[in-house]
Amino acid sequence: MAIVLGPNRYGKAETRLVRVTRDGETHTLTDLNVGVALSGDLAATHLTGDNSGVLPTDTMKNTVYAFAKKHGVGEPEEFALLLARHFLKTQGQVRAARVGIEAYGWDRLGPHSFRRQGAWIRVAEVVATAEQEQVVSGVTGLTLLNTTASEFHGFVRDRYTTLPETTDRILATAVDARWRHLGTQNLGTQNLGTQTDWAASFDGALTTLTEAFVNTYSLSLQQTLFSMGSYTLHERPEIAEIRLTLPNKHHYLVDLSVFDLTNDNEVFIAGDRPYGLIEGTVTRDDAPPAFAEWYL
Amino acid sequence: MAIVLGPNRYGKAETRLVRVTRDGETHTLTDLNVGVALSGDLAATHLTGDNSGVLPTDTMKNTVYAFAKKHGVGEPEEFALLLARHFLKTQGQVRAARVGIEAYGWDRLGPHSFRRQGAWIRVAEVVATAEQEQVVSGVTGLTLLNTTASEFHGFVRDRYTTLPETTDRILATAVDARWRHLGTQNLGTQNLGTQTDWAASFDGALTTLTEAFVNTYSLSLQQTLFSMGSYTLHERPEIAEIRLTLPNKHHYLVDLSVFDLTNDNEVFIAGDRPYGLIEGTVTRDDAPPAFAEWYL
Amino acid sequence: MAIVLGPNRYGKAETRLVRVTRDGETHTLTDLNVGVALSGDLAATHLTGDNSGVLPTDTMKNTVYAFAKKHGVGEPEEFALLLARHFLKTQGQVRAARVGIEAYGWDRLGPHSFRRQGAWIRVAEVVATAEQEQVVSGVTGLTLLNTTASEFHGFVRDRYTTLPETTDRILATAVDARWRHLGTQNLGTQNLGTQTDWAASFDGALTTLTEAFVNTYSLSLQQTLFSMGSYTLHERPEIAEIRLTLPNKHHYLVDLSVFDLTNDNEVFIAGDRPYGLIEGTVTRDDAPPAFAEWYL
Amino acid sequence: MAIVLGPNRYGKAETRLVRVTRDGETHTLTDLNVGVALSGDLAATHLTGDNSGVLPTDTMKNTVYAFAKKHGVGEPEEFALLLARHFLKTQGQVRAARVGIEAYGWDRLGPHSFRRQGAWIRVAEVVATAEQEQVVSGVTGLTLLNTTASEFHGFVRDRYTTLPETTDRILATAVDARWRHLGTQNLGTQNLGTQTDWAASFDGALTTLTEAFVNTYSLSLQQTLFSMGSYTLHERPEIAEIRLTLPNKHHYLVDLSVFDLTNDNEVFIAGDRPYGLIEGTVTRDDAPPAFAEWYL
Repeated sequence: MAIVLGPNRYGKAETRLVRVTRDGETHTLTDLNVGVALSGDLAATHLTGDNSGVLPTDTMKNTVYAFAKKHGVGEPEEFALLLARHFLKTQGQVRAARVGIEAYGWDRLGPHSFRRQGAWIRVAEVVATAEQEQVVSGVTGLTLLNTTASEFHGFVRDRYTTLPETTDRILATAVDARWRHLGTQNLGTQNLGTQTDWAASFDGALTTLTEAFVNTYSLSLQQTLFSMGSYTLHERPEIAEIRLTLPNKHHYLVDLSVFDLTNDNEVFIAGDRPYGLIEGTVTRDDAPPAFAEWYL
Repeated sequence: MAIVLGPNRYGKAETRLVRVTRDGETHTLTDLNVGVALSGDLAATHLTGDNSGVLPTDTMKNTVYAFAKKHGVGEPEEFALLLARHFLKTQGQVRAARVGIEAYGWDRLGPHSFRRQGAWIRVAEVVATAEQEQVVSGVTGLTLLNTTASEFHGFVRDRYTTLPETTDRILATAVDARWRHLGTQNLGTQNLGTQTDWAASFDGALTTLTEAFVNTYSLSLQQTLFSMGSYTLHERPEIAEIRLTLPNKHHYLVDLSVFDLTNDNEVFIAGDRPYGLIEGTVTRDDAPPAFAEWYL
Repeated sequence: MAIVLGPNRYGKAETRLVRVTRDGETHTLTDLNVGVALSGDLAATHLTGDNSGVLPTDTMKNTVYAFAKKHGVGEPEEFALLLARHFLKTQGQVRAARVGIEAYGWDRLGPHSFRRQGAWIRVAEVVATAEQEQVVSGVTGLTLLNTTASEFHGFVRDRYTTLPETTDRILATAVDARWRHLGTQNLGTQNLGTQTDWAASFDGALTTLTEAFVNTYSLSLQQTLFSMGSYTLHERPEIAEIRLTLPNKHHYLVDLSVFDLTNDNEVFIAGDRPYGLIEGTVTRDDAPPAFAEWYL
Repeated sequence: MAIVLGPNRYGKAETRLVRVTRDGETHTLTDLNVGVALSGDLAATHLTGDNSGVLPTDTMKNTVYAFAKKHGVGEPEEFALLLARHFLKTQGQVRAARVGIEAYGWDRLGPHSFRRQGAWIRVAEVVATAEQEQVVSGVTGLTLLNTTASEFHGFVRDRYTTLPETTDRILATAVDARWRHLGTQNLGTQNLGTQTDWAASFDGALTTLTEAFVNTYSLSLQQTLFSMGSYTLHERPEIAEIRLTLPNKHHYLVDLSVFDLTNDNEVFIAGDRPYGLIEGTVTRDDAPPAFAEWYL
């Protein structure tokens, strides 16, 4: 028996980059939070503190800023690919480069004026190796609510079950979704960077997720989850699979009968904790497998 | 010398209320966080634990939910007034009732479907006594940014000053503003509840604050603050005074010269801490004084 | 009628300072979050953007770091006084300097090794003018809980009251306290910086607050609040008055009777929101008035 | 090609349980945050909303509270095993039950009085199937700092590297660690619930992690990570492998030379973002593989 180093990686997390592009009077704004993680032949620094294979995380940060100037930023998936490929190509000891980005949206108020949005955050994560690239896009914090068209009944009852059945409830969730793009497995035959219109793909997925939530008459949040995932895959052929984490943000009907008032699904307590948590993947049965771990 | 009880109050904080109004197929949604604080003759419970003058905070919570059903919610200022007057009238030992509300906005997606906004939160705070009522409205978390039209120079220099002067910088802030309404001092001659169109007043103030930020060519964040306040008072005759707390969310220009790159105000680090903090009041010189403490 | 500038101030918030003192092999660590706010003759920058009276907030940050080296840090109250006096003396346009400090505690693990505490944070806030100085100390986030020795009954009942009376409940709170020191009003006759042993005073107040919470058989959280404040004033003659904000962190007894189980105050839900909020001041009847606003 | 349901699970997150045990006058307090996630034959609810295989998450919450009364809580690992086995045994459609617990520590102040600790949080996560059980323990938020005995040099330099080498720096991190226990793979031959003294195991691992951080003269945070992991495995034979996520909480030396001051590693800026992030596993080369995904 020996004690040995297992899987490992290192990098710089949460490099905050704001990139302004000045096209005459009209400026554009990109606001990102960039994380880089490298893995490869890193045993020496762990075992002896020999850093001869360690690119400083400070350098990763510098690279983010320098590349933002040299190449511009574009869509988060593009910028993540650009950075991941750079680290992979220039650092021979690196076997896999992972770059994750959060992108914060801003509404335009004028030629050089903006108001930060807050309804959701767009995310992208790329993993690159010498042989393969994997691109995952996603959204976090998209809070959706239906005031009706949601039921929950016919469930298992055991001795600890007290929940009444309902044919009319609020259904609310804060969508956390990631979807893996097709065409990202084999660098020999495909070119990720030019194949996908990342902006259109993201906007499309955001729309299908939202529409499916709105339009599903829901008998369970699981049903809504599957509807969101399957409708998105149906509409977006570039997506291989999608993972959804949906907290069931409970809204408890207040018992007003003690005050001689009826509460016909009008007055609710918005609960914090506990909450239901529904997690699931919707996939194509012929999707190529992911080659690197990703979110769920 | 004696040790005595000084100013005090008590109440229920953060009662989360979601109110659905069902007008046929089309539902409306109001999402509030309500706080109640009462003060008055409360010495007994402090000194001896005699609770004969203490309305339980649990009752305050119940009242919030019951009133939401009985009276509906309407604008946050109205609901706060309704609640504050109730506690004042029905509890003889209460001298002042303070009700504060945060209102979370939702965008409509369908007849019964909504997406939560996140760009800012609307707030209202009412204080009611037997003689007077004071209504304060406000906004928090409104994050605004100009990529240019901001300078900072001509400032004091001492031996610890190293900041270079600049004629072009990003100016960004997260607006936290409260404004006190006129016509709220004398219950004998005025009737707050019907006088002001609270929704129009809030929307108007949000617009003037935003427009003043956008349109001010700024030599200091203080100048922008005064511009935001004075323009709002100019446009909104119903407002007596406004208080603004503006963090200066620093965006640091990255020195890319070491990488043989020029950075013409294009690539910035969005800093977290420390930050400048600019706080100020803009008022009418004939505004009646506030009778109860309020925010800054 | 004119629109005019009212009260205002500006400064640098959240300057994070870690100061290491190296006494041979044994190091000491001070970990602070410093905020500076200056007020005075600042109309010009607000009205015209003339910054000739504005010391940059960046300079305040530099001063914090330079003073930490030159003078050391010592107790938070001392360091706040040092900084406030500096800005007041060197900037003629400044009428009042306010310095607030949060101090994070660390446990020693070795000569140069530490583990951060998390049970509470110590705070200090100083306001200095040419004539007066005011020192406030405090603690935040001190979470205390009694599993019994707490009752709540005999309260007012109205039509919205449903709370049952109880003679045995959990009482829990997260103490947020600030206390104003005596001897801080008149610079002619007193010398704050040398008069008070700030460390002993803080430790003493922390002890009395905690002991009073533990030892009070409580009929209401208000009674516990007064007990905490009055015992502290009784034991600490250097303190003029104390303000306490005590959330009532509700622990709800779970009804297990439906599962044929009795719950003799053994199983509780720790609630998040809403919560009671009890705020009060305990003072000496001969305490000199505060000359500057402070916390509650 | 078809669109199909992939891996999924559901449950109740963040059930907050406070359990008081009353042994005469002296009470003990256990404060937990419990999450349950079940997976198995759940296709129907996703595809058609047929909930006949869905135990409500509300029932999971009830079960947590009822079991806390019936069986007591004990160590987090025990309570997690108890719950996981229950759901597995009583719900035929469930293939795997995952129970995760956060445990918050409290210091005793008296027979029934406590102060909440804040230096770290203990965690446990159990996965149970019909054939196997896996127990992971861990700690989160353990913030450690060495003021010296840390160097960083000899690293890779590329055109974006500007970091100076250093032979004396602050090393600080907030330890997030999870370790998988041995003896958890084969239910036929072993009995997890009685084999391990969970409290002693946790205390031992906390001690070895802390001691290794303190005693390692560090040439890189990776070296410290490996030292922490390998020392823990060396001392704790019951642990199969350990995963560590260590943010490098940068402390930047302030350049005081412009103020004619020298800064011999005495005055630092505690940075927030970005931060280094070092992640690694240390394992026994003969450790049986994990049968269910766990944290890194």
